[in-house]
Amino acid sequence: MLEPTVAAIRPLDEAAMAAARDLQGRLTKPVGSLGALEPLSVRLAGLAGTCPPPLPEPAAVAVFAGDHGVHAQGVTPWPQEVTAQMVGNFLAGGAVVNAFARQAGASVTVVDVGVATALPVDPASLGLPVDPVAPVGLPAGPRLVAANVRAGTRDMTVTAALTSDEARAAVEIGIRVAGELIDGGAGILLTGDMGIGNTTPAAALVAAFTGADPAEVTGRGTGVDDATYARKVAVVRAALDRHAPDPADPLGVLAAVGGLEHAALAGLVLGAAARRVPVLLDGVIAVSGALAAAAFAPDAVGAMVAGHRSAEPGATVALRHLGLDPLIDLGLRLGEGTGALLALPVVTGAVRVLHEVATFDSAGVAEK
Amino acid sequence: MLEPTVAAIRPLDEAAMAAARDLQGRLTKPVGSLGALEPLSVRLAGLAGTCPPPLPEPAAVAVFAGDHGVHAQGVTPWPQEVTAQMVGNFLAGGAVVNAFARQAGASVTVVDVGVATALPVDPASLGLPVDPVAPVGLPAGPRLVAANVRAGTRDMTVTAALTSDEARAAVEIGIRVAGELIDGGAGILLTGDMGIGNTTPAAALVAAFTGADPAEVTGRGTGVDDATYARKVAVVRAALDRHAPDPADPLGVLAAVGGLEHAALAGLVLGAAARRVPVLLDGVIAVSGALAAAAFAPDAVGAMVAGHRSAEPGATVALRHLGLDPLIDLGLRLGEGTGALLALPVVTGAVRVLHEVATFDSAGVAEK
Repeated sequence: MLEPTVAAIRPLDEAAMAAARDLQGRLTKPVGSLGALEPLSVRLAGLAGTCPPPLPEPAAVAVFAGDHGVHAQGVTPWPQEVTAQMVGNFLAGGAVVNAFARQAGASVTVVDVGVATALPVDPASLGLPVDPVAPVGLPAGPRLVAANVRAGTRDMTVTAALTSDEARAAVEIGIRVAGELIDGGAGILLTGDMGIGNTTPAAALVAAFTGADPAEVTGRGTGVDDATYARKVAVVRAALDRHAPDPADPLGVLAAVGGLEHAALAGLVLGAAARRVPVLLDGVIAVSGALAAAAFAPDAVGAMVAGHRSAEPGATVALRHLGLDPLIDLGLRLGEGTGALLALPVVTGAVRVLHEVATFDSAGVAEK
Repeated sequence: MLEPTVAAIRPLDEAAMAAARDLQGRLTKPVGSLGALEPLSVRLAGLAGTCPPPLPEPAAVAVFAGDHGVHAQGVTPWPQEVTAQMVGNFLAGGAVVNAFARQAGASVTVVDVGVATALPVDPASLGLPVDPVAPVGLPAGPRLVAANVRAGTRDMTVTAALTSDEARAAVEIGIRVAGELIDGGAGILLTGDMGIGNTTPAAALVAAFTGADPAEVTGRGTGVDDATYARKVAVVRAALDRHAPDPADPLGVLAAVGGLEHAALAGLVLGAAARRVPVLLDGVIAVSGALAAAAFAPDAVGAMVAGHRSAEPGATVALRHLGLDPLIDLGLRLGEGTGALLALPVVTGAVRVLHEVATFDSAGVAEK
């Protein structure tokens, strides 16, 4: 599934982009006065291959959850069980991602791609799909997709986090979830994640794909103290030194120093790009996965919209590498898809302008 | 009406803010991980005097329209008639503010507080209020309030833009519109404006209230060329030199170098603050009016939320003076209320977290 998906990803449509630029110049507003929204609308026209592009509705958040063997190195003060407990919170509708999704009218699909401990939910009682990644459509409430590849990664300071087959399985789960959500009607996909310790592999991925130093891309995650932070940087450096991953081999990088949710997010991005549906990126976990997607298929960047600038330094390094400017910059560092959800109305608004705003001619407004 | 409104504006409620800070610490997320949304939610609790504060719904945009005698000095390439034509566009639902308001579920109330040329609408055919500022409630479609104080200001490089009575009348129209919208059910007010040439008096107001140099606060508005920009700076400097307005006398400043929409926006802010309803500021016209509101009543700043950072340099100078950080920074320079509308979901989201997110205790999630 991976190779055909990568092969299906094509460049943006220049004719549709030219049509969008022309239309922006005829709408009743000074040219350029909508700032970053104007080039965004042009890019989304190029992705859709038509002007105006469809409104990015409805929105679907996919929250990939996984655990991390590197947790054993003391990179976070949070117990690993919190990953599973937060999955329970997502399914009960009690997390911030749920509140923001309700506000935005977005569906929430939680994908267990690698949680290590027992989920505090009875799958049967929730009417989960029996098939890993059964058709999920766009559920009214939060839905769990049971697609656990393994119970957390291995400790990347000791051995590769994943086998190549495991990394591929996670990427393909992301591709499948993208396809199912788009088949269910989604007009835009939003990335979400949950995984205690997952900013550590995210930093390693950003360093591996961009060549940045571990100290430049490692952040304080949920808010670790100075000693934990120093240990975290050392852990990232040790893992990179041990594996020396080749950025031209994204599956190898994901296997060496990645996480299952990072790999699945790379797949989600690839799946969306292949279907020419925009994918709104959340924070550092998402953009580290997006770097892998861009390494698989450089044209996948055309489908990416950077939702926000995470407080994690690696996010900024990754966005610069991808050539993306984030829409929101509010110091968020929660993950779950929360930053992407806050940015969604900006994306929708950028497209809506092309659909609904009158031209100078049609409105009888004089030009300068 | 002005003096009792100013007298009714009180500081934020410290007990409600403490309760909001405490609640933020118990919700299922790392403390501080929602960045700027957390202090915003605390401030809105202080404004409402209760925790959680009410969701800021429904939202009402008030777009104040006026013309400017200083247009004669060649500060913009746009003909003055565009102000009236755009009012027609607002009422027909064809402008960007309308598209964004539909998306956000916000009402649009257009207030003719000083348009110089004939509106391209027949008031009778639109069922306008007969009374200037009749009850407007929260209309389903755009509604015009006919409250024209005079047909544009005078040229501030020649004489005062307004008499003191005219400036007061405009401020009081803003106060009345705030009251009517809140009586109609609005949970948050958003500032909007339309007025060809109105970034010139905005720059003069920012310079007068902050002491900044005209060259520091004057921008390119709709996108003027170098020669027009130089003329614009000279015009702002000449007006300030002529009138030497006293920042401790906000009515005097508004009369000397203001605009009718700037004065009305100051009134809208005061009216919202007196009723302890948040007011979401748009761009440079709004924040120049907000400076006047803060000069009337320093505690009015507690009700202000800065929607976005306008591309106009005066907006940044004004926000710094008010101690406000904007929520969105996308290079917008359109006005109309568009930047405030894009920021609205962030404000609503910040409050929604306090209403809907589970605590660690209630969700059975472990803490670090």
